[in-house]
Amino acid sequence: MKRSGIITLTTDFGVRDPYVASVKGVILGVHSMAVLVDVTHEIPAGDVAAAADVIQEAAPCFPGGTVHLAVVDPGVGGERRAVAAEAGGHLFVGPDNGIFWPMLKADPEFRVFHLRNERFFRKEVSSTFHGRDIFAPVAAYLAAGREPAEMGEPVADPVELAEAPPVFCESGLTGRVIRVDRFGNLITNIRREHLEEVADSGRPVIEVGGLRVEGIRSRYEEVDRGEALALIGSTGRLEVSVNRGRASERAGLGDQSAVGSVVRVRF
Amino acid sequence: MKRSGIITLTTDFGVRDPYVASVKGVILGVHSMAVLVDVTHEIPAGDVAAAADVIQEAAPCFPGGTVHLAVVDPGVGGERRAVAAEAGGHLFVGPDNGIFWPMLKADPEFRVFHLRNERFFRKEVSSTFHGRDIFAPVAAYLAAGREPAEMGEPVADPVELAEAPPVFCESGLTGRVIRVDRFGNLITNIRREHLEEVADSGRPVIEVGGLRVEGIRSRYEEVDRGEALALIGSTGRLEVSVNRGRASERAGLGDQSAVGSVVRVRF
Amino acid sequence: MKRSGIITLTTDFGVRDPYVASVKGVILGVHSMAVLVDVTHEIPAGDVAAAADVIQEAAPCFPGGTVHLAVVDPGVGGERRAVAAEAGGHLFVGPDNGIFWPMLKADPEFRVFHLRNERFFRKEVSSTFHGRDIFAPVAAYLAAGREPAEMGEPVADPVELAEAPPVFCESGLTGRVIRVDRFGNLITNIRREHLEEVADSGRPVIEVGGLRVEGIRSRYEEVDRGEALALIGSTGRLEVSVNRGRASERAGLGDQSAVGSVVRVRF
Repeated sequence: MKRSGIITLTTDFGVRDPYVASVKGVILGVHSMAVLVDVTHEIPAGDVAAAADVIQEAAPCFPGGTVHLAVVDPGVGGERRAVAAEAGGHLFVGPDNGIFWPMLKADPEFRVFHLRNERFFRKEVSSTFHGRDIFAPVAAYLAAGREPAEMGEPVADPVELAEAPPVFCESGLTGRVIRVDRFGNLITNIRREHLEEVADSGRPVIEVGGLRVEGIRSRYEEVDRGEALALIGSTGRLEVSVNRGRASERAGLGDQSAVGSVVRVRF
Repeated sequence: MKRSGIITLTTDFGVRDPYVASVKGVILGVHSMAVLVDVTHEIPAGDVAAAADVIQEAAPCFPGGTVHLAVVDPGVGGERRAVAAEAGGHLFVGPDNGIFWPMLKADPEFRVFHLRNERFFRKEVSSTFHGRDIFAPVAAYLAAGREPAEMGEPVADPVELAEAPPVFCESGLTGRVIRVDRFGNLITNIRREHLEEVADSGRPVIEVGGLRVEGIRSRYEEVDRGEALALIGSTGRLEVSVNRGRASERAGLGDQSAVGSVVRVRF
Repeated sequence: MKRSGIITLTTDFGVRDPYVASVKGVILGVHSMAVLVDVTHEIPAGDVAAAADVIQEAAPCFPGGTVHLAVVDPGVGGERRAVAAEAGGHLFVGPDNGIFWPMLKADPEFRVFHLRNERFFRKEVSSTFHGRDIFAPVAAYLAAGREPAEMGEPVADPVELAEAPPVFCESGLTGRVIRVDRFGNLITNIRREHLEEVADSGRPVIEVGGLRVEGIRSRYEEVDRGEALALIGSTGRLEVSVNRGRASERAGLGDQSAVGSVVRVRF
């Protein structure tokens, strides 16, 4: 696979501590030409599913051969494996805890390797900061053209991410809010494909919290300012929004507490 | 215009969601050598005037031929035009909602173009994320040397930003706080030039909230620690500060609620 | 010293205002090939010791010849000197207020220079924003290969950072919490070397706030989830943590208020 030279970073480190810069310093020490792009460092501490969701959305916007480094790693220093993976023309480096599962499962040819070859690690490996000591140098070597297969044995059973897909019933389907973005949009686990399975059932009614909207729109401006609407967002998911407002508030749900809320689609 | 290769980014996306990284991934896919610099992603959602103010302050620090991408776009998917502009030796890409107006109005030769040529867009353009699908690739092509004039028809009447300049009266002038920075400095819409118009009127007295200071200082250390002062800030605006303290608190104004507060200058 | 081309940035500017981007624009105007890496911009306003601690942790992860720019500068425009320094194979630029002291003191050969040569400054130097007008261009020239000695006279007495090392007593030693990271880990001023001085005294008991733990572990997973432990963190400091939890909360200390709390180690 040709490399783009880009390394993206997704962590739960925040931006107050020196941890992100430590990772970047190690990367640049190995591969000074690497182009570093932050995805986010604001993943809630240890929230692997939230990280997996963000990576799944951002990664496909990057050119093929990009290395995606992800460190949300509550099991650091324990039994969990460190891995590098190939899938969909991209490379992934991080803990084997399901963080890359949405990307792997979308590519039947995915390959995962257990990082064991210490020549790709920092000289001293701490037990508490594998992001700096293992994942950073490995990402740098991958971006510079080394192969995951050089770094360890294949893994046949990478950890999968427990997912709760929407549930179909007679009158429609039921999903969940998986993310509330900065604009208060309620992003759900219901995808365009799920709706198409029941698309001949007429005009949908979507309910979440105290909000009820009819039909799927294609742009915010189809409703008046301050009105709620549902649409298929920019990555193919059903979203409930308010034109120039916050759906999370309108639904009577807090921003963080809205995550997990039930979304009902009836026809 | 020779290009610097730099693209700055100013948005209201925040840094928790994958939106900023998606924009950057698309840019680097078009122009892998682009140098990306974040101005801020913490513009309050939809606050075009706040974004315009930040861009006006940061852009002149960059070398000529830099592309400034700005996405504060509450009208996305609606009637508003997408534009690219040239002014003051820099390039600008974003919605036609006034966000670049301070930069345009400072250059009588400014030129604005309505982005219509789809060959500079992503293949599929969503109705909710023009930052990723239109502005990002356009910014990348501009940074790589393409001309705004290739991308659409000239716009004769770009949207202007409603501004409230300070008001002059017999005893002096009255302005507003337009920003409170991280240090609690109260940054006003009163510029050095405004004060110079009435400069022969003697020593000014500046009042904002519960604060009253005399004279314009040139450095914080001219007053004791904890004392308030007024000075002309690093971009030519009248600012009210407290040496090693927070003027916003001293004035009895909250950080966000201070924006818009009346500032009186009497002589 | 060979240069890495990298410039790291540590400030108390936050990321809402245009200040960080202004600094970066000036750097790139002088040295377009510079590679910019943010350490953090979230240092509490004016907290020189916090900045010194973060720099001390991040800087050694970067390749030799990196320039570390730090602007936590409550005395800007006053009497304090602007300096460039060399120590440990790295370069440092910022105010002479102790911010680089931990790096200097670790290298007996350190050299410090008072920045006086205005040809390395911006043309107009404001009295309130030396980060943009002095430190940014100086950092750029250093990254491009210029020598600190060209920029001003040697400084024999750089400002030292007042430190409070741990205190030894008959039963052990007493230190302080110096940082609480995003994971709630309590990071102390007690280093591995301090513990080794009393290492033959048996198994230590560590107390901080309402927490009491026995022994020094080497990995989080040695204790059950939710259990507290002490370990030597990734930069050689004693840390008190909770496996997959927050030690700051478990100790009954708030995140910010925990800084400065007494840590007792008894044997």
